[in-house]
Amino acid sequence: MSNAIVLFSGGIDSTTTAAIAQREGFSLILLSFDYGQRHRIELLKSQRVSEQFAGATSIRFPIDLTRIGGSALTSSMDVPKNRDSKLEIPVTYVPARNLIFLSIASAFGEIYQAYDLFYGANILDYSGYPDCRPEFIEALETTLNRGTKAGAEGIKFHIHAPLLKLSKAEIIRRGLEMGVQYQHTHSCYDPAPDGTPCGECDSCVIRRKGFAEAGIEDPALQNEVRYE
Amino acid sequence: MSNAIVLFSGGIDSTTTAAIAQREGFSLILLSFDYGQRHRIELLKSQRVSEQFAGATSIRFPIDLTRIGGSALTSSMDVPKNRDSKLEIPVTYVPARNLIFLSIASAFGEIYQAYDLFYGANILDYSGYPDCRPEFIEALETTLNRGTKAGAEGIKFHIHAPLLKLSKAEIIRRGLEMGVQYQHTHSCYDPAPDGTPCGECDSCVIRRKGFAEAGIEDPALQNEVRYE
Repeated sequence: MSNAIVLFSGGIDSTTTAAIAQREGFSLILLSFDYGQRHRIELLKSQRVSEQFAGATSIRFPIDLTRIGGSALTSSMDVPKNRDSKLEIPVTYVPARNLIFLSIASAFGEIYQAYDLFYGANILDYSGYPDCRPEFIEALETTLNRGTKAGAEGIKFHIHAPLLKLSKAEIIRRGLEMGVQYQHTHSCYDPAPDGTPCGECDSCVIRRKGFAEAGIEDPALQNEVRYE
Repeated sequence: MSNAIVLFSGGIDSTTTAAIAQREGFSLILLSFDYGQRHRIELLKSQRVSEQFAGATSIRFPIDLTRIGGSALTSSMDVPKNRDSKLEIPVTYVPARNLIFLSIASAFGEIYQAYDLFYGANILDYSGYPDCRPEFIEALETTLNRGTKAGAEGIKFHIHAPLLKLSKAEIIRRGLEMGVQYQHTHSCYDPAPDGTPCGECDSCVIRRKGFAEAGIEDPALQNEVRYE
């Protein structure tokens, strides 16, 4: 059984991605990042969400991206609400974040002999993030295979992005077919101190639309206590 | 005057690279990393070395790569001494380190509008590190231009590796022509607690050979107090 590293925030996309990796027969290493995100509840939630993946190894890696800033997720900028344009790159873009995370994942990959990296990016519902585009993923895969010891020794890294071309509704349906539990997944960029989602940021809007299109009630709405 | 980010350890290569960037007219941002390196004296020294670059901004970014390990520089493995083979990748390789560092540099680049990244890699005297190869640098440049906001907006990152094909002696001669002060540069991977270089690791051996071939006494040998 090969190891795979999953970039894991405990949101809908990364949770579904983890389920796909497990279904494909990989032994899971769930890598989450304490990067100074405004929505720190994500860290509590992701632990809870990870419990559904029996046998998985969880790693939390701290990297303080507030020292870089430049994003509404890592500084005091306002998170945009009910945003109109889906064309421009929003201020919730965190400079080079996913590149940094995937680079760190490749380092862990060399340690765990886990050359399959799972990344829950998707382009249809994405909010204009450049690091969710297939041409980025392809270039990074080449970079990893040229710049790492593993790559130099002929072992190939493979970045899997199984959600890349799915809508949020398709992702949710696919997850439910696999038995994914979405109850504790967290999406909101700007939750209240008790963890209650704002309902108006891009991430909340896309989540709500996804469940509506899938014709399913969001199970997280059934949580009596949101912040555990 | 454009900003440039220099990956800066305060060793011979990155110090010479900084001087080249300054000579090319860039305003310098010297980015160093507190990554849990065994040779922590590098952090003290790099500050001292940076003082020769008038007007430069210094940033120190902490990222604890000992949590990943897998290298003699970030774990309790022994640093090899007087190593014979230059063909295999040594245990001083830190998994994906330079990829991680350059990724973080690109994030700062987006903040500082510094799309010129200077990287002191070189392939002739290199110790077999895959991330010092031109094909890695080229692939990463493509990755940055596809995966960052700046890249998506048509601004091009450029990774400069001006030392890539120079020998250590050529690097030293070039630096001296530009007036680089090497007195406080640090190279050793495995210094004594007082900072005295071991003299036998790859980095010490390459340094000594470089000064010998350049026909110059290493000015660091004149330091009466090594650890300041």
